[in-house]
Amino acid sequence: MSEVHVSLGERSYSIDIGSGNLGRLGEKIAKIAPQVSGVFVVSNQTVFDLYGATVLRSLNAAQLPRCSHFLIPDGEAHKSWETLYGILSAMLEAKLDRKAVLVALGGGVVGDIAGMAASLYQRGIDFVQVPTTLLAQVDSSVGGKVAVNHPLGKNMLGAFYQPRAVLIDTDTLRSLPAREVSAGLAEVAKYGLIGDLEFIAWLERNTEKLRALDSAALVHAVEVSCNAKAKIVAGDEREQGNRAVLNFGHTFAHAIEAGLGYGAWLHGEAVGAGMIAATKLSRRYGSVSDADVRRVQNLVGALGSPTHMPALGARKYWDLMALDKKNESGKTTFILLEKLGQAKVAKGVPFKDVEALLP
Amino acid sequence: MSEVHVSLGERSYSIDIGSGNLGRLGEKIAKIAPQVSGVFVVSNQTVFDLYGATVLRSLNAAQLPRCSHFLIPDGEAHKSWETLYGILSAMLEAKLDRKAVLVALGGGVVGDIAGMAASLYQRGIDFVQVPTTLLAQVDSSVGGKVAVNHPLGKNMLGAFYQPRAVLIDTDTLRSLPAREVSAGLAEVAKYGLIGDLEFIAWLERNTEKLRALDSAALVHAVEVSCNAKAKIVAGDEREQGNRAVLNFGHTFAHAIEAGLGYGAWLHGEAVGAGMIAATKLSRRYGSVSDADVRRVQNLVGALGSPTHMPALGARKYWDLMALDKKNESGKTTFILLEKLGQAKVAKGVPFKDVEALLP
Repeated sequence: MSEVHVSLGERSYSIDIGSGNLGRLGEKIAKIAPQVSGVFVVSNQTVFDLYGATVLRSLNAAQLPRCSHFLIPDGEAHKSWETLYGILSAMLEAKLDRKAVLVALGGGVVGDIAGMAASLYQRGIDFVQVPTTLLAQVDSSVGGKVAVNHPLGKNMLGAFYQPRAVLIDTDTLRSLPAREVSAGLAEVAKYGLIGDLEFIAWLERNTEKLRALDSAALVHAVEVSCNAKAKIVAGDEREQGNRAVLNFGHTFAHAIEAGLGYGAWLHGEAVGAGMIAATKLSRRYGSVSDADVRRVQNLVGALGSPTHMPALGARKYWDLMALDKKNESGKTTFILLEKLGQAKVAKGVPFKDVEALLP
Repeated sequence: MSEVHVSLGERSYSIDIGSGNLGRLGEKIAKIAPQVSGVFVVSNQTVFDLYGATVLRSLNAAQLPRCSHFLIPDGEAHKSWETLYGILSAMLEAKLDRKAVLVALGGGVVGDIAGMAASLYQRGIDFVQVPTTLLAQVDSSVGGKVAVNHPLGKNMLGAFYQPRAVLIDTDTLRSLPAREVSAGLAEVAKYGLIGDLEFIAWLERNTEKLRALDSAALVHAVEVSCNAKAKIVAGDEREQGNRAVLNFGHTFAHAIEAGLGYGAWLHGEAVGAGMIAATKLSRRYGSVSDADVRRVQNLVGALGSPTHMPALGARKYWDLMALDKKNESGKTTFILLEKLGQAKVAKGVPFKDVEALLP
């Protein structure tokens, strides 16, 4: 078992990574919130069928009071204003007070929307992230970004709200469909591409082990990823500077997801294709080589994600990207590679430079 | 013109109080947000008819880009999840980015819901409070509490989110109905009752001047109130300790408002009657005298607010109070007077002690 510390002053917390962690949830909550008055688990049917019993048993074993759960429909389409209201209403009906703890048990959708419910309920209660997908473990559970989607854009309504703890049980990855594992691995690769050349080489060597869910390889990949993200977030909690490099590939990815309709592609799949596009854009500006582009393409492909963006038309892509939150004053911002293993923020990229990359 | 400073570290801001401040809004925004990309004014029809032109003129004079406005329906009943979504959708339709500034122009309802919209839009943008009612000027514009109501309780969904500035134009009080002035003065009196015996005496001497909207008296009352609240908030931004004393009278007041339906009584009116009830409860515990109770009753009455709670039945009151956010683990918390001019938090007050006070 390993532990990653996220340094955010009084909002600091730790991420426990290891096998069998689900069974330690109860004692973890008792430790971080000794005065807990109730525990409200938010999950979806699929995840709860697999892990609900283990989680509830752990909560009861720790003798935590008034434990209940609430299931939301599965899928990005339900990361909505309406679903959020449903969670908050259920919390009020359960008469939870400010000393209650919310547990987000599931993937990124559950984590984002449940975290947002925790941030808004009676102006904010404690919450614990228990991410059960690879993508959520390496991305959305670290950094305190919570949000729901709006028909006009993904994650447009949200907050910065840190969990009190993150508990990652790598055993949960065994139940993931191969496609979700690959999507998560694309996001893992991101940490290499934006900041860690050595990790890129490690990933290239361990592609097969990772896709076969080798336990030691997964723990290493999750730990390196969480550490990388934790370091970046600690330096820029509210995304006013360097934190933006975490969005490498995401300007393209968000446009893919919005253009196809949320849920058609997995977020990590869109990020995989988006990272390739962003590397090609970097190539255009001369900061990486053709060989680098091929290397990124090969890595994303070997990890099992699509390597080409779907055809939506350049103009549609551009319009969708114009609404991206990272933009300021009408300029479109992209995260590019300064070189392989080092990202940078590029503001004011014009349409003509991107057009040829947009299918 | 006077200025009150709210000390909250990197979230510090100042409150400008004076005559003619509406005309200074544009220059204020230009000063605090030099890179502003757009200004989105949230108001309601009544307030906007009175002050919209002045505000827009001021924004344009300062040459701020892309100024627009959005009006919400008037009244506490519209401080809802649905109205909040309407504001956020309009902001997205206006393609505001993260450098946009939201202006809340109106009373407490506008301030609370617009502040919440600012806190959620793309995970938070700057906002400026321009409170136009006395209650909003002395209460809801100071301290960063933003919220909307839920059918199961007032202000149940919200956040702590500080404005970048508060601009108080005491001239706007001239357009208030007498009833709203009185409701605001009840909240002004609260600052005396919970922390400033001298201010109680000043209020007793200046009741007539205040109700007649004497400008110098109003500026003094607003300044003392904002200073008192700013000091308490600075010591306890997230309401984990002493900030709760600001809720003096509010446990009763929220039950009155929820019981009658939001909007039947003005919030300040309910606070006035609630403070008298809380003083009577303090009398029961022996911390104040019968003379103190009469003095509070006389002050609230002289300022023009109701001195008796409406008849709802003791049991209904108690059930409504059980849902109050200040409660923890089933115990009902009240703010009582340690003595006149000094409040304290009392947890775990039993029904039998309160029953006789509930009509």
